[in-house]
Amino acid sequence: MTSPSIPRVGIVAKRGLTAAVEHLVQLVAWLTTRGVSPVCEVDTHALGAGRLSCATASREDLPRVVDLIVVLGGDGTLLGMADRIGQAGCDIPILGVNFGNLGFLTEIRISEVYDSLEAVLAGTATFDHRLMLAAEAERKGRVFDSRIVLNDVVFTKTALSRMIELSVSVSGRFVTSVRADGLIIATATGSTAYNLAAGGPIVHPLVDAFVLTPIAPHTLTNRPVVIPGSCVVEVQPQLNGAPEDSFVTYDGQSGYPLQEGDVIRVQRASATLRLVKPPARGYFELLREKLKWNER
Amino acid sequence: MTSPSIPRVGIVAKRGLTAAVEHLVQLVAWLTTRGVSPVCEVDTHALGAGRLSCATASREDLPRVVDLIVVLGGDGTLLGMADRIGQAGCDIPILGVNFGNLGFLTEIRISEVYDSLEAVLAGTATFDHRLMLAAEAERKGRVFDSRIVLNDVVFTKTALSRMIELSVSVSGRFVTSVRADGLIIATATGSTAYNLAAGGPIVHPLVDAFVLTPIAPHTLTNRPVVIPGSCVVEVQPQLNGAPEDSFVTYDGQSGYPLQEGDVIRVQRASATLRLVKPPARGYFELLREKLKWNER
Amino acid sequence: MTSPSIPRVGIVAKRGLTAAVEHLVQLVAWLTTRGVSPVCEVDTHALGAGRLSCATASREDLPRVVDLIVVLGGDGTLLGMADRIGQAGCDIPILGVNFGNLGFLTEIRISEVYDSLEAVLAGTATFDHRLMLAAEAERKGRVFDSRIVLNDVVFTKTALSRMIELSVSVSGRFVTSVRADGLIIATATGSTAYNLAAGGPIVHPLVDAFVLTPIAPHTLTNRPVVIPGSCVVEVQPQLNGAPEDSFVTYDGQSGYPLQEGDVIRVQRASATLRLVKPPARGYFELLREKLKWNER
Amino acid sequence: MTSPSIPRVGIVAKRGLTAAVEHLVQLVAWLTTRGVSPVCEVDTHALGAGRLSCATASREDLPRVVDLIVVLGGDGTLLGMADRIGQAGCDIPILGVNFGNLGFLTEIRISEVYDSLEAVLAGTATFDHRLMLAAEAERKGRVFDSRIVLNDVVFTKTALSRMIELSVSVSGRFVTSVRADGLIIATATGSTAYNLAAGGPIVHPLVDAFVLTPIAPHTLTNRPVVIPGSCVVEVQPQLNGAPEDSFVTYDGQSGYPLQEGDVIRVQRASATLRLVKPPARGYFELLREKLKWNER
Repeated sequence: MTSPSIPRVGIVAKRGLTAAVEHLVQLVAWLTTRGVSPVCEVDTHALGAGRLSCATASREDLPRVVDLIVVLGGDGTLLGMADRIGQAGCDIPILGVNFGNLGFLTEIRISEVYDSLEAVLAGTATFDHRLMLAAEAERKGRVFDSRIVLNDVVFTKTALSRMIELSVSVSGRFVTSVRADGLIIATATGSTAYNLAAGGPIVHPLVDAFVLTPIAPHTLTNRPVVIPGSCVVEVQPQLNGAPEDSFVTYDGQSGYPLQEGDVIRVQRASATLRLVKPPARGYFELLREKLKWNER
Repeated sequence: MTSPSIPRVGIVAKRGLTAAVEHLVQLVAWLTTRGVSPVCEVDTHALGAGRLSCATASREDLPRVVDLIVVLGGDGTLLGMADRIGQAGCDIPILGVNFGNLGFLTEIRISEVYDSLEAVLAGTATFDHRLMLAAEAERKGRVFDSRIVLNDVVFTKTALSRMIELSVSVSGRFVTSVRADGLIIATATGSTAYNLAAGGPIVHPLVDAFVLTPIAPHTLTNRPVVIPGSCVVEVQPQLNGAPEDSFVTYDGQSGYPLQEGDVIRVQRASATLRLVKPPARGYFELLREKLKWNER
Repeated sequence: MTSPSIPRVGIVAKRGLTAAVEHLVQLVAWLTTRGVSPVCEVDTHALGAGRLSCATASREDLPRVVDLIVVLGGDGTLLGMADRIGQAGCDIPILGVNFGNLGFLTEIRISEVYDSLEAVLAGTATFDHRLMLAAEAERKGRVFDSRIVLNDVVFTKTALSRMIELSVSVSGRFVTSVRADGLIIATATGSTAYNLAAGGPIVHPLVDAFVLTPIAPHTLTNRPVVIPGSCVVEVQPQLNGAPEDSFVTYDGQSGYPLQEGDVIRVQRASATLRLVKPPARGYFELLREKLKWNER
Repeated sequence: MTSPSIPRVGIVAKRGLTAAVEHLVQLVAWLTTRGVSPVCEVDTHALGAGRLSCATASREDLPRVVDLIVVLGGDGTLLGMADRIGQAGCDIPILGVNFGNLGFLTEIRISEVYDSLEAVLAGTATFDHRLMLAAEAERKGRVFDSRIVLNDVVFTKTALSRMIELSVSVSGRFVTSVRADGLIIATATGSTAYNLAAGGPIVHPLVDAFVLTPIAPHTLTNRPVVIPGSCVVEVQPQLNGAPEDSFVTYDGQSGYPLQEGDVIRVQRASATLRLVKPPARGYFELLREKLKWNER
C-alpha cells in the first residue's frame, strides 16, 4: 500500500538521544510496512547502530530527497532542520516529536506519532504555516551570509563588554539607537522562546508580524515593538572602536562577530514552514500547559 | 473658492480649554474665507462666548453633518469623537491638534494646523487608517450595550477588592482564567496608552492585531498576548459571589459594573478611523519623541 | 502536664472553612489533654456547631486573652489576626496552618501541626520575627485612623477613573509625584504578595527595608524603590478636583476613600509579628516551592 | 594655609578626556595655593602634557599616598578607583566630578568642585558611606582572585552560547539553579546601574542589602531578590560540558571565564567607600533627574 503524495519520509533525531533508538527502529519498520521509504539523517542512522534498515542522507540533502521530515527530540533539533529546509527552498512539512517535555515546536508526543503519520499519509492532517525570517549580512556592500530562521535573529554582546549599540531602521525609517545587552528580532513562533525571557510579548502564529525586543536596554523606555510582517529591518552595529564586541546569532544555533559598517537585513522569508498539528491541541492549550497558567 | 469634497468641517475643543479660544476664532474665520462651512460642537461654541460665527451641532450629531472633524486638545477629546464617529457609522477623518504636549493621537501642532488643512482641502493629505474595536455587552442572552473604541476595552476591579477573575476565550477557544487587577484589550493605537503602563508591547498601527495585557496578574507567567485582528475575544467575569467587583471601561472614558454571567464580546470594528497625518513625522519619530529614546 | 509559658492557645479558622471542623475538634481535644486551655474565636466556635468544648473570645479580644494563636486557613485570615495583635499591642506568636496550598504566611501543613505545637510548648520552637508597618491617616491635621499591617498599605484608583496622582515623600524629602493605577508600600513579608504581581522585587524577611512599588505607572522609568526600614513615608493624593477617586487599603482587607489634603503616614511598627517556623523549611525552599523555580 | 587633615589630594581623570586639561591645570594650582599637595595619577599627568606641576603616582599606589581622590570623568573611572582603594585597604574618600551628564556616582558638577573641596578641607563636608562587595574566586579549593567592587559582580554568557546555568546559594542554603543570560549581584549603589536595565529594583544606599537579579531568566517566575547585607552568596557555574561559556565580571571593568567546579563567593566588604556629597542634592533628587521622573 503506497501513499503517492508522501513516498519518502526523512527521520532526524536529536544528537546522542539514545532513548530514541527503539522508537527509530519501530518507526522505520512502520513506514516500510506502509509502503513509504524511510530516509535517516546520517548521524541518526549511526545512533541506530546498525538496526535501522533504510537509506541515509546528510542534514543538508535530506530536505531535497524526502516529502516529510519527522524530528525526534527538542525544539533545537527542529530549528536546525527548519534552516536546512529554508535554505534548500523546499516546501516540505515537519512532524516534531518531543521526548518527555512538551516543546513549543515539538508538540507531538511519542504516543501520538502513528496517529499523526496516518493523518499525513491519508491527506487529512492539518498544518500550521509558520512565517520565517530571511536574514542577509552585508559587509562592504557585499552579501556574505544569508539564513532562514524560524525563531529569531539575535544581536548580542560578548561576555566582557558592558553593552552594545545598534542602529535600527525599519523599512528605511530610522527607529532608534539601542544601547543594551542585545536585540532580538523574533517571529511569532520565536516569541515564546528567547523573546519571552527578555520580556517580549507572546505573538499568536497567525499574526503577520515580528517583534523587536531589546535585551536589558539602558534606556528604560525602550520597549518591545511589534512591527508588520511586510517590514524590512536593518541593524547596524555601532562599534565605537571596540571591534568584535557585537555578534549576530541565528535561532540560537550559530553566529559570528560583526564589524563596523556591517548591515544585517531581516525580512519575511518567501517560504513558510509547515508543522504537522497534533490531533487536538490548540495554541492556547499549548501556552497554558507550557507556562503553567492553570496552576495555583 | 469652495472645496467640493470637504464642504463642512466640524470643530471640537477639549472641555474648558480657554487657551483654545483665540485659535477657534481664527480657525472659524480661516475656514469661512476658504469657502468651507465650520460647524462647532455645542460646548465648544459656548467656550467661544459669542465670538464663533458658525453653525453648531451636538457631539452625537456632529459626525453626521460634517466631512472632517478638527479636534483641539488632548487624546481624551479625540477618543470621545472616535466613539461618536464609530457609533454613527460615518467614515469621516479627524485632524487632531495638541496644545503643548505632543499626543499619540493629537499629533499635529497648532502651528501646523493650516498647512494640514490646506493639504486636506487640496486632496493631497495622507491618512492613517486605524483599526477600532467593536464591543458588545450581553446579559442574559441580550446585548444591552455596544461601543466602538479606538484605544482599549479594559476590565478592572474596584478600589477595595483584591483582584478579579476573568474567563477569557478567543474565537471560541478558552485561553485562561486571569486573576489580576484587570485585563486590557488594546488596539495597536491603544498599545501606547494604558497598555504600555501595564507592561504591554508597542504595536505598530499597520499590524492587524490586538493585544491582551493582564494588569498585575497573580500568575507571574501570564504575559501580554498579541492576537490576530480577525479574532473574537469573549470575556466573562467570575464574580464568585462578590457582585459589583468587576467593571468594564471603554477608552478610559466611561463604563459600568458587570454581573455574573455577563459576556463582553470584542472584535475588530467594520469601520476604521482615519487620522490626518502630520506633514513629516513618521510613527517611529513619534515614539522617539514621546518615549524620550534619544535622551541619554 | 501543664505548659506554664503557653497556658492558653487561641484558635481561628477561615470563615466558612467547613473542611477544618474535624481538625478543630481534634485540636481542642489535644490541647486540653496537654493541659493547655483552648480559646476559640467566636465565628470559629460557631463553625464547630457545638462540637468544640472550650472558651470563646471575639477577634478583637482574642490576642489579649491567649499566649499563642493557631490560624487555620489562608494568608488572608492570618493577616486579619496580625492587625488585631498589632492593634492590641500584644506580643504573641502565630502558628499559621494551610489547607491544601502552601501559603507564604501559613507555612505549616495540617500534618505538621502537632509537632509544631509540641515544639512551642517545649520551648524549642523557632520564630520568624516579621517587621510590620504602622499607618496613620490624617485629615485636616487630625489623625482619624491608625492601622498595623503585615503585608502592605496600598493606594489605588476606583474602577472608572483612569489613574490617580500621589505625592510621595520619604523622611521629609519629596520623592516624586506618581501617576499610576496606584502605589504599594510593602514590607518584606508583603513583597511576595501583591507587590510581586505589580512587578516589585522579593525582599528577604531579614532585610530592614520597605518597598515602594507603583502599579502600572504612566512614567515608564518609575520603578520599585527599596527604602530603609527607618524611613517615614508620607503619601498625599492629588485629587485635582476628582473626589473619591483615590482609596487606601490595608493588607487587602479593608480601606476607604481619601480626600484632598489627606496625608497617610507609614513607618515601621514598634512591634514585630512572631511566626512559628515550620520544622525544616527555609525561606528559599518556600520561594522555590511557591514560585515553581524547580520545574522545567 | 595648610589643611592638616587633608595634606595630599590625588587626581585622576578619565582616560583621554582632553576636555579636562584646563580644569586639571586650575585644580593643581588651586590646591597648591591652598597648601595642599596635588598628586596626579600617571596617565592623568601625561594628559596634562607638561602643564601639571605636581607629584605622580600609579593607579595602584595613589590610594596609599593621598588623603582624598578627586575623580574627573564618568562613573567608570570612579569605579576603577573604588576597586584600588578597596584593594589597598585604605579609607580615603572620593570626590566624583562629572563632565556634562550627571552621574549616579560622579554627582558633583565642575562648577561645584571648589565649594566641595573647601568643605572637605574645612572639615564641614558630608560623606555618603557606600557598602562594597568583596568577591573571592576559588578553583580546586584555592582562592585565585579577590576583588572589591562598588556596583556589581556579574555572571554572564558568551555571545554564541544560548544561556548559562548557575547554582546559587545564600549563607549555605541553596536558593535555585538560574538558567538565564546571567546573574547580577548588585550593591545598593549598583542598583541604579546594570541592575536597573535588567529589571531589578532601585535600592536606597542606606539599606543594608544586596540584590540578586537574573538577566533574561528562562523561568519566568525567577525575580530579583533583595537579601540582607550580612549574607554570603556563593555562585557555581554548571557548565554541562560547555567550557568557557560562563564569565564573571567585576563592576563591568574586567573579568574572566569560569571553569566547572569554580566557586565565586561574594559578601559585604569590610571597608565602605566614602563619597563626598554634593552641596544640596539628596538621593531622590538624583533619581528624579537621572530617571526623568519630572517630565511628562
